[in-house]
Amino acid sequence: VDSRLPNVGTTIFTVMSRLAQECGAINLSQGFPDFNAEDVLFERVAHWMRAGYNQYAPMAGVAPLREAIARKVAALYGTEYHPEAEVTVTAGATQALFTAVAALVHPGDEVIVFEPVYDSYAPAIELQGGRVVRMQLAAPDYRPDWGAVAEAITPRTRMIMINSPHNPTATVWTAGDMARLAALTHGTGIVIVSDEVYEHIVFDGRRHESCARHPELAARSLIVSSFGKTYHITGWKVGYVVGPRELMVEFRKVHQFNVFTVNTPVQLALADYMADASRHEQLAAFYEAKRDFFREAVAGSRFELLPSSGTYFQLARYAAISDEPDTAFVQRLTRETGVAAIPVSAFFADGRDERVIRFCFAKNEATLAAACERLRQV
Amino acid sequence: VDSRLPNVGTTIFTVMSRLAQECGAINLSQGFPDFNAEDVLFERVAHWMRAGYNQYAPMAGVAPLREAIARKVAALYGTEYHPEAEVTVTAGATQALFTAVAALVHPGDEVIVFEPVYDSYAPAIELQGGRVVRMQLAAPDYRPDWGAVAEAITPRTRMIMINSPHNPTATVWTAGDMARLAALTHGTGIVIVSDEVYEHIVFDGRRHESCARHPELAARSLIVSSFGKTYHITGWKVGYVVGPRELMVEFRKVHQFNVFTVNTPVQLALADYMADASRHEQLAAFYEAKRDFFREAVAGSRFELLPSSGTYFQLARYAAISDEPDTAFVQRLTRETGVAAIPVSAFFADGRDERVIRFCFAKNEATLAAACERLRQV
Ligand SMILES: CSCCC(=O)C(=O)O
Ligand SMILES: CSCCC(=O)C(=O)O
Repeated sequence: VDSRLPNVGTTIFTVMSRLAQECGAINLSQGFPDFNAEDVLFERVAHWMRAGYNQYAPMAGVAPLREAIARKVAALYGTEYHPEAEVTVTAGATQALFTAVAALVHPGDEVIVFEPVYDSYAPAIELQGGRVVRMQLAAPDYRPDWGAVAEAITPRTRMIMINSPHNPTATVWTAGDMARLAALTHGTGIVIVSDEVYEHIVFDGRRHESCARHPELAARSLIVSSFGKTYHITGWKVGYVVGPRELMVEFRKVHQFNVFTVNTPVQLALADYMADASRHEQLAAFYEAKRDFFREAVAGSRFELLPSSGTYFQLARYAAISDEPDTAFVQRLTRETGVAAIPVSAFFADGRDERVIRFCFAKNEATLAAACERLRQV
Repeated sequence: VDSRLPNVGTTIFTVMSRLAQECGAINLSQGFPDFNAEDVLFERVAHWMRAGYNQYAPMAGVAPLREAIARKVAALYGTEYHPEAEVTVTAGATQALFTAVAALVHPGDEVIVFEPVYDSYAPAIELQGGRVVRMQLAAPDYRPDWGAVAEAITPRTRMIMINSPHNPTATVWTAGDMARLAALTHGTGIVIVSDEVYEHIVFDGRRHESCARHPELAARSLIVSSFGKTYHITGWKVGYVVGPRELMVEFRKVHQFNVFTVNTPVQLALADYMADASRHEQLAAFYEAKRDFFREAVAGSRFELLPSSGTYFQLARYAAISDEPDTAFVQRLTRETGVAAIPVSAFFADGRDERVIRFCFAKNEATLAAACERLRQV
């Protein structure tokens, strides 16, 4: 078969979770919690199923959920999105990103991404015949180089895909970064696709700089978020996208022929659940405590921890332990130490290997304690 | 915004369901049941949610569901698919079709479809730079013209998308059709994408001619089905695709970066539910009774009913009532008569209008009776 994605294999998250399971290792690789969401959320799903809400939702999502999303975004970031025309519920954030690219990137268009980059971005762009232009976020602080971005922008630049809080580096962009991005794209017609799935997970008093806080950016951004990351239900595959009407029209043209719509009783349950804003407001403190617990528990090991300012990830350099490539190191760590992690080289097109791996600390303290006990022995 | 799909508007199913709701009309337009699925299915979902199965499923789907799908397909059609490598759970059949096209159609490739054609096929092809080659299924019997298909096949033909039982015509292909398709594509490397979402809904003792019944076709087919249509849960958006390993490898390359995976507790619940094969075995008789009820109840009207051999749709010619275009006629029928239907011109690229509309009879008898009472007055 003549492949459309000849260089693509199986996503690293599947590879590592499968290996973790085979080895019975503690799985700190793929990003998901090992604790359950609240029963009240399940009860709402059960309620709507029994009440007979099991047929197609409207294409863009059920009205109460779109309204709840618009209310949340307005309350947090100040931009008012029209629930009918400017909010669409998606089958997860990944589907939102894929669909945004498919809807807006023409063959030959250039799309700027920041490396290390989440592994779905480049294949989505390449599938549409777009050209991926990679900006480097260089260790150890992984800050964007706005001068380099300015040089990379050409008349063919169609889109810039950004992601803050950033997976895998756990960095958080500042208001200054957003101002630079706004200035660089001012008057260009470049679309920003902003992956904000960790919007509620920022630490040490930082503020999440949503594009929706910056009106000039908001006017040409599709902003993507995830209920999976916010409500501990990554397996439900529900997210959303907000953006101005003219971008949303194009987004929905593709969305309606890709997944058409999203699980109805789940949408209605999430609308109910969103009514209590404290649920997302508590998230930062909840994960900050886990970060601190994890960092303290790893402290006695030979891993060198990088800063973690947001997301539920923690980067660690293992150069003091081994000079193996990171892919080999995580395999051995999974098999021999019984802790699975993600090799950060998987986020680089050229497989660049800085001897850094990523741990997910969205786990019970008992899990983290057991993992760290093993890590301290490496 | 420079649209990638300049000729695409909002799908007709959304347009008509919205209008039906605005007018308080009986909605026989978009294809979905107005009765509920069984409580036992909801209880299984609730069980798996409470038990904590709310994080990412494996990319291709949970093992028990893939195994149940492989067992069902083998039992019904004789082809054995390997659950690990040859079965993938999707976020509905539409996502499976979209993903299959994205994974296999290169820019400039030709894809043969049969008109009237489900409205997602052509945009999916065009988005990948493919060329849509339309074969006509001509009223009143809507049979494929295999001579014309033979002439349409060129060295650039990459894929043929088929759909039996067929939406919207309610026709069912025969073993002879499958033999012709096999002969025409023999040795060509053309991939068949077979939309079999109504596989369990065939009437009057007909047999569903799955590609999985025809080994030569099965070897180069991706076969798509839908739990929504089979278990009365169209709003859950779960389907699946089966096909040989070499096609599935390409399918999954795109699938993993499109939706990645599908709702975990729903998948586990469906695996439990599939254990009882009588559920899909009873479906044909269940809908045949509804078809008969609907046809008898419409009989006293001035609508001329075409045959319905499968699916849950019924075509009706209204030429004796009005010579309005079908789009105008369904609008008026919705507003004035209080019954919504789908104009069949929406399934033709050139908007061909044969004064035929489509009713969905997947409804309670009370709904059908009320709708027919209104239709008899037209
Ligand atoms: C879609 S599986 C990957 C989950 C995730 O966001 C991550 O681990 O980075
Ligand atoms: C995806 S909404 C349309 C449902 C359907 O299959 C139809 O009405 O034809």
